[in-house]
Amino acid sequence: MGRPKGFSEAAALEKALDIFWQRGYQGVGLTDLLNGMGIARQSLYDTFGSKRQLFIKTIEHYRNTRLAGALALLEREGSPTQNVRDVVRFFEQLALDKRARGCLVANTLVEIGSKDREIHELLAQTLGLLEKGIAKALRQAQREGELRAERSPRAIARALTNALIGMAVSGKLALSKSAVTDIYAGTLTMLD
Amino acid sequence: MGRPKGFSEAAALEKALDIFWQRGYQGVGLTDLLNGMGIARQSLYDTFGSKRQLFIKTIEHYRNTRLAGALALLEREGSPTQNVRDVVRFFEQLALDKRARGCLVANTLVEIGSKDREIHELLAQTLGLLEKGIAKALRQAQREGELRAERSPRAIARALTNALIGMAVSGKLALSKSAVTDIYAGTLTMLD
Repeated sequence: MGRPKGFSEAAALEKALDIFWQRGYQGVGLTDLLNGMGIARQSLYDTFGSKRQLFIKTIEHYRNTRLAGALALLEREGSPTQNVRDVVRFFEQLALDKRARGCLVANTLVEIGSKDREIHELLAQTLGLLEKGIAKALRQAQREGELRAERSPRAIARALTNALIGMAVSGKLALSKSAVTDIYAGTLTMLD
Repeated sequence: MGRPKGFSEAAALEKALDIFWQRGYQGVGLTDLLNGMGIARQSLYDTFGSKRQLFIKTIEHYRNTRLAGALALLEREGSPTQNVRDVVRFFEQLALDKRARGCLVANTLVEIGSKDREIHELLAQTLGLLEKGIAKALRQAQREGELRAERSPRAIARALTNALIGMAVSGKLALSKSAVTDIYAGTLTMLD
């Protein structure tokens, strides 16, 4: 039968994202996915190929929507240091979200690590986009005198990206709001 | 038959630590443990009760040996800020170790999360020791004028602990030595 009438791949991916983001990859069964996405088994296979291929498409969808939103903050006119602060705050909001879902990319890195080469490379490449975007903004900040001359934009960008990954794990400690706020405030002192 | 002649619980835990640290908890079978520790199944049960109880004892052993070594750095005379830097360097050395084992506590947090309540509380309490030790040193640093007055010792301590957790995960990206060095250099700017 193929795809049902009115089937939208973007809408299906958005539903898959909700499910994987909340529950991870390995713990979600095919039946949960089909129920959550409201599609038939054959539609999933016709459109995405397999659960694993659906997951890869979902990470790409997350990158093209959520992460792209964070990266767009870096491209705005105005203070590049403030733009970087806003990106970090963007992830703080994810950490403070009651659903405690963290960042899908960091979560998946924790869950799957290097066990799946294709997924691992997609994650490394996606984190690389974030790191490179932050480093570029910090180089501009340095040229404009907003970041101290002795700071390494690349080192700060790498340390900030690392801190964002740490937050995804720290979320598993069920941290208080004050702890999350502290972690971000402390982390942002790298920009002083 | 109980324990063989010359059986040493500390030596057995040291061997178990080697195995769990390298390979995680869930992926290690009982046979691997018995072979690696050089003891019989009955000895393991008599001494530790179960694989899970052995793992809990191993985390405690890690805390009492490795982590205690890091905490002792904080108690030394001299500059408290330098002591904190040395603790961060201590974990950098773990990250640079060719075996790429990271920190057992952070690794276990990533692997087990909150799935096992007793282990989860042991990990949270152990990370709390590190955070509190760093915060205490930073409060002293502030009294002695080594840390800027407007900094929050608690926020910096929490952000540093978070960064150390991030490193345990970043290790899964098979980072280059330059990336690890950058992450630590960037992270340590929190103390400037």
